[in-house]
Amino acid sequence: MKQFIFLLFIFVSNVIIHAEDGSRLWLRYEKNTDFLPEIIFNGKHTPVIETAIDELKNYWNGKTVEFLIDKKQKNWKDGFEIIFNSEKTKLTARSEIGLLYGAYELLRLQKTGFDFMLDDKAAGSTIIGNFPKCDLRILNHWDNIDGSVERGYAGHSLWKWDELPDIVSPRYQEYARANASIGINGTVLNNVNANPKFISREYLVKIACLADIFRPYGIKVYLSINFSSPKESGGLPTSDPLNKDVRQWWKDKVKEIYSLIPDFGGFLVKANSEGLPGPQDFGRTHADGANMLAEALEPYNGIVMWRAFVYSPNSGDRAKQAYEEFMPLDGKFNKNVIIQVKNGPVDFQPREPYSPLFGAMQKTPLMPELQITQEYLGASNHLVFLASMWKEFFDAARQTFTAIAGVANVGENTNWCGHHFAQANWYAFGRLAWNNQLTCNEIAEEWLRMTFSNDTAFINPVKTMILASHEATVNYMMPLGLNCLFAWDHHYGPEPWCNIPGARADWLPGYYHQADSVGIGFNRTISGSNAVSQYPYPLNELFNNIKTCPENLLLWFHHASWNHQMKSGRILWDELCYKYQEGVEQVRDFQKTLDRIENFIDAERFSDVQYKLKIQTKDAVWWRDACLLYFQTFSNKPIPYLLERPVHDLEEMKKIKLNMKHHN
Amino acid sequence: MKQFIFLLFIFVSNVIIHAEDGSRLWLRYEKNTDFLPEIIFNGKHTPVIETAIDELKNYWNGKTVEFLIDKKQKNWKDGFEIIFNSEKTKLTARSEIGLLYGAYELLRLQKTGFDFMLDDKAAGSTIIGNFPKCDLRILNHWDNIDGSVERGYAGHSLWKWDELPDIVSPRYQEYARANASIGINGTVLNNVNANPKFISREYLVKIACLADIFRPYGIKVYLSINFSSPKESGGLPTSDPLNKDVRQWWKDKVKEIYSLIPDFGGFLVKANSEGLPGPQDFGRTHADGANMLAEALEPYNGIVMWRAFVYSPNSGDRAKQAYEEFMPLDGKFNKNVIIQVKNGPVDFQPREPYSPLFGAMQKTPLMPELQITQEYLGASNHLVFLASMWKEFFDAARQTFTAIAGVANVGENTNWCGHHFAQANWYAFGRLAWNNQLTCNEIAEEWLRMTFSNDTAFINPVKTMILASHEATVNYMMPLGLNCLFAWDHHYGPEPWCNIPGARADWLPGYYHQADSVGIGFNRTISGSNAVSQYPYPLNELFNNIKTCPENLLLWFHHASWNHQMKSGRILWDELCYKYQEGVEQVRDFQKTLDRIENFIDAERFSDVQYKLKIQTKDAVWWRDACLLYFQTFSNKPIPYLLERPVHDLEEMKKIKLNMKHHN
Repeated sequence: MKQFIFLLFIFVSNVIIHAEDGSRLWLRYEKNTDFLPEIIFNGKHTPVIETAIDELKNYWNGKTVEFLIDKKQKNWKDGFEIIFNSEKTKLTARSEIGLLYGAYELLRLQKTGFDFMLDDKAAGSTIIGNFPKCDLRILNHWDNIDGSVERGYAGHSLWKWDELPDIVSPRYQEYARANASIGINGTVLNNVNANPKFISREYLVKIACLADIFRPYGIKVYLSINFSSPKESGGLPTSDPLNKDVRQWWKDKVKEIYSLIPDFGGFLVKANSEGLPGPQDFGRTHADGANMLAEALEPYNGIVMWRAFVYSPNSGDRAKQAYEEFMPLDGKFNKNVIIQVKNGPVDFQPREPYSPLFGAMQKTPLMPELQITQEYLGASNHLVFLASMWKEFFDAARQTFTAIAGVANVGENTNWCGHHFAQANWYAFGRLAWNNQLTCNEIAEEWLRMTFSNDTAFINPVKTMILASHEATVNYMMPLGLNCLFAWDHHYGPEPWCNIPGARADWLPGYYHQADSVGIGFNRTISGSNAVSQYPYPLNELFNNIKTCPENLLLWFHHASWNHQMKSGRILWDELCYKYQEGVEQVRDFQKTLDRIENFIDAERFSDVQYKLKIQTKDAVWWRDACLLYFQTFSNKPIPYLLERPVHDLEEMKKIKLNMKHHN
Repeated sequence: MKQFIFLLFIFVSNVIIHAEDGSRLWLRYEKNTDFLPEIIFNGKHTPVIETAIDELKNYWNGKTVEFLIDKKQKNWKDGFEIIFNSEKTKLTARSEIGLLYGAYELLRLQKTGFDFMLDDKAAGSTIIGNFPKCDLRILNHWDNIDGSVERGYAGHSLWKWDELPDIVSPRYQEYARANASIGINGTVLNNVNANPKFISREYLVKIACLADIFRPYGIKVYLSINFSSPKESGGLPTSDPLNKDVRQWWKDKVKEIYSLIPDFGGFLVKANSEGLPGPQDFGRTHADGANMLAEALEPYNGIVMWRAFVYSPNSGDRAKQAYEEFMPLDGKFNKNVIIQVKNGPVDFQPREPYSPLFGAMQKTPLMPELQITQEYLGASNHLVFLASMWKEFFDAARQTFTAIAGVANVGENTNWCGHHFAQANWYAFGRLAWNNQLTCNEIAEEWLRMTFSNDTAFINPVKTMILASHEATVNYMMPLGLNCLFAWDHHYGPEPWCNIPGARADWLPGYYHQADSVGIGFNRTISGSNAVSQYPYPLNELFNNIKTCPENLLLWFHHASWNHQMKSGRILWDELCYKYQEGVEQVRDFQKTLDRIENFIDAERFSDVQYKLKIQTKDAVWWRDACLLYFQTFSNKPIPYLLERPVHDLEEMKKIKLNMKHHN
């Protein structure tokens, strides 16, 4: 069987090379044929080192590369230093994984047109040092045991649980390689809404098989666990974290896991959130729950990533609740617990302020959870370069992180991400997790050069497009701090009017936009929910004052009058109309940009992206019309007459019900 | 029963007055309540005179009006002269119908803000003379016996055959009044694809009832007949027009008709056209057929309107066939036969050259057939002011007509025409049939003032909009002389690719656009079908030469290269793209125009029209995308990069099949 799979792999690889279907991602190196580069390494040839050497032997076409390990460079972490001189290239790292990352850097430099030629007169050398800002760079897969992917828009799960461990898809290795090439070193394989079965012996064997494939690429495996596992699958009468038997059950389970996966990373936990079980079911705290797991993992250097995504239908302001629930627990978590906090206080909206927990929990490590999959950003139909959004977060949160998580956007689709340009978000997540000081411009340019072309006539306009794409999407979906205007069943299209009898108020758009005859927006000032007080001085005062609150978050923090004077000189209603229209026009401009560069890229990827941009433009018009016509029923003001008019009818749009509950 | 209907009428009238549903058309006069104007007439009070007096008594609020009849003014035809002086208004006509038209002119002047105040110092008088250019101003209804309307977009037929003659809808009289108010004096009640039953005794009784209602408004009734009637319903073995029994059958039938309807107008005949029977079935000519009917009608002053809309699948160029078939018959028709010719040589396309039969048949009277119903112009969804198109025809054909026909756009819809602005086309048809020297500007302004408002802040922008609307529609549907790009089953949406196996070539778009890798358009020059030769000098040479052919008919007469240099400096392909885009932008501008005048008109009509304009904009984008993406598969050229890009996918558009075979 293995033989057969190997042959299949060869066949598929060939097809991939000839069909420009996006399957090669940003790893479009040309294989050496006549040329065999010299790679020198005098140390121990571990699997990771072998991976690094193989990658260079296959694809490096420059001078001799010498690998060196310098264990003294503690601060280098997983980083590396490259010294180019006229004779050879020296790649030094503190550890084997640093050498692998350095090898990928060499290939990236080669592919993106870096000039390796040295000036002889200077007789010097060029030094590149590249060291990660953050230790754990982890993908979170919301993949279910049945092969579906929650909020997945690129087909079913990559993980074929019914085939593993007997049949091994070549894509497992390709996946690991892609991650390693951008510095990702961990992956949570299953959905945070976790099925207890994943830690059964049956599944651990399958997972160990994946861990074996990922290991030579420096990727550790993690699992989401269900807090009720002791009761659900362990046969215990309770899952109370202070119960002795429960604690022992977890210790035994962890031991079992490590016996199969010696470098297992640890657990990700969603507990007491959106109906999932957790320690509060037994009158215990999040700290009690997390610490129990941490204690079991500690002997193996495993960690617990405990999610702070909690909110209840009965509290006042959903945006305040994670802070309110977790701040009192600061300092009460074991040292191998990290609190995983979504970047914003609500839920991956196109634009949110940063979560006030960042910077506030001084005695507990926090890791941001970013969402690579476009749950609220047009799924895999819209071209949205998310680095811009994440940079906003990193710039605002102003703290260093030891760990960063990103909810993956990959699936079994041939092009991995559903949209060729969504690959840029996987890429950007890896690069920013490694170093969030990188600029969007750098990441965009790197990715475009690797994925498409080094021709500046291609790069410049397309880079301009993708750098504008997040703001464009905010404009046509929910500008000025609006959020959560999505349809009930799916988070794709607009339903600002959505009102389901008996539904939780905080699951309905009206809870967030608060539109009425006076104005629109959620009053989170001290005269309202006072969520502003969760931010440190002077941000709290800045947000609280409608005159100083950034306009792109205005309606997040204020219920502003339709007549509120904006900096543009327009009133709020008019500004809202202009923003929506601007979004539509930006996407139309993206279409123009793409069509202009048709001759620079292959026809297959061109036409795929061209098709998706059509959908995006149509959707942008749909969003504009739905939101403006609905909010107009409150503002009672005309859309400014210079602007393009709606082409949809409000009552007809209200009848649109997309069958998108399940996406894959 | 009559009592009940009368009460119903009162009730409906009240509702109509309060609901701005468009049912009042352009007849929005305010009824006199306290004031009773003096109307003097010393002649015989016929029903037509009574109508005129009643209209003025009800709605005239000026000085005394004196009616005079002056039979000596032969040249006045149905016209009239009005003299205003400081004491009273004198209305003089040659006949009673002229007085009725004069009464409507007075009301029109009053409604549109005409200044009746005389300058005392001048001590003079103001004289208005208004005389029709054409005797017969006839609507053609394509209404079927089952209540459906072929190419009707305003609901089912007005004529309730199952109710007549027992139940009489109030709308019959309203219809007659609306027609009289714009000078229409005849109506063909049934479809040219005629059911023989319409001339059965059973139906003639019903039709006589309608004729009785129409008579006081000066409207004569005509009928479409089926040429096979003698066989189909007369029990004869043949319908051969030279057969004695057949001729007698028609004479008897005509006699019967006149016994019931003494002022019956005559017959409209579609024969040997699109599968209908005709004299050629018996080896006879159109003249043989028409003359037989003419002979039967002649004693009663009835006429035959014989349609020249003929074409066969086996001839070379459909555009030439009416000319080829009818020219040899010139001079062979009886004097009470009029050949009814569609304005263009093919079939009511958004833009056609005039039919070369006009001006060519010197010894036979011709009447143009215009189409008021928007078969090829967006049905009742698109705002298209057709006066512009008809004026193009009248200006080009350069001949006087004694009769003009228009295919009606009315149905049982409350607003009569399906689109409030489609009422303008009914209005414009009447006005142009009366006097085709009127300008579009005059007609548009008159109609807007009567139908909506005298406020110039309303009139000026809306008039600009409707005057541009036909060219806009040509732009987004089929610019530069393109035609017949419609879907197979309906003539609403685009299907330039339509290719039905086994279908008649001349019923498929490819027959007309002839797109290939070299260029696009039908070569009708002397190197092609030589249809140009049917036009008189110098038009034939003008059309034949690609350098002098008007660009708006370029692809009608030429198969032009994609690279053909246009007057704009662009190549043909680029020009085509610009035209389609211009059409889209024009309709978007119409939306802006309408929204700006919201406060000048009632909310009901405003929102109806606003909704239709949304559809029109969406359709314009659909047309643009369908045609450009399809033709691009031939031109292999990019859409100019400054232009907005398509948002539809060609293959997806090809799958669109609207269920519009039956519209009502």
